[in-house]
Amino acid sequence: MDKIEKKLSNEVVYDGKIFVLTKDDVLCPNGQKATREIVHHRGGVAILFKVDDKFIFEKQYRYALEEEIIEMPAGKLEKGEVPLEAAKRELLEETGYRPLEMIHLGDSYPTPGYSTEVIHLYYCPKAVKEERHLDSDENIELIYLTLEEIEKMIADNTIKDSKTVAAIYLYKSKILGI
Amino acid sequence: MDKIEKKLSNEVVYDGKIFVLTKDDVLCPNGQKATREIVHHRGGVAILFKVDDKFIFEKQYRYALEEEIIEMPAGKLEKGEVPLEAAKRELLEETGYRPLEMIHLGDSYPTPGYSTEVIHLYYCPKAVKEERHLDSDENIELIYLTLEEIEKMIADNTIKDSKTVAAIYLYKSKILGI
Repeated sequence: MDKIEKKLSNEVVYDGKIFVLTKDDVLCPNGQKATREIVHHRGGVAILFKVDDKFIFEKQYRYALEEEIIEMPAGKLEKGEVPLEAAKRELLEETGYRPLEMIHLGDSYPTPGYSTEVIHLYYCPKAVKEERHLDSDENIELIYLTLEEIEKMIADNTIKDSKTVAAIYLYKSKILGI
Repeated sequence: MDKIEKKLSNEVVYDGKIFVLTKDDVLCPNGQKATREIVHHRGGVAILFKVDDKFIFEKQYRYALEEEIIEMPAGKLEKGEVPLEAAKRELLEETGYRPLEMIHLGDSYPTPGYSTEVIHLYYCPKAVKEERHLDSDENIELIYLTLEEIEKMIADNTIKDSKTVAAIYLYKSKILGI
């Protein structure tokens, strides 16, 4: 059975800085017509990196949630940038460490219902210390957490950021083999 | 230190069916002005539910990703609906089981950088079989997976949906105690 929803028409309703929003009329496989509001996002990267057995994590005020949350270093792809380059750039900018190696843990879909966003998850096993270069509108406090502390914070729902949970899951299975 | 970004102005740039998009000018704690494009979403629910030791999961074509993906039963809050009611409604609609009990596993932030969306995660330990009532534009195939199969599919990145990974993590820690 063909499950694809065919695009009948497509209208850009907002062309923004971090995404483009379209309103698409589609034909469902059952013959029904439907409207899909789609956030077109270039995608993001998120990087797990440890110094002396502690992961460098971030405490960051998130305006959309009106809350300071704990999450792993992450960022958006620049125009034309491939995920690996973005991961290297973001780790350096946000933590001040230049990665010498990056291992792709897998990809994560944060909002498959209405967004094209894919978050590419990495683990950096080796890096050298340089300087942080935050964007002028970024206000990120670095915090240092052991795997045990992170797992406890996921389990008690202190860490709610879903890319961070996905990355820790993949790190444990792919890198630690547990 | 005050980390809050103060709203200076706010413009609705799109008022849609599943979200409202605003463009806000904000004042950062360091005195910089910045623009925040925010998806205002009512939030969602996602429910883990087992029949005979197999979780009822879904294979669903996602137009935004142009791909059929595997994920847990989930849906959006209706206007004025509280998360628990939405979770009960969505489980019945999508799987045909009316829940008799729901345990809140925790909440998940899929996209804290630009969206207000919170996904409320539940585990249903007990339900009775009734009828499925899919929305007319939904085309969902139910699949039945053991925890072991789901964990393998997360580890090999077959399951990329981040709410599903978060829910399985919380199910293991909160319900199974592992």
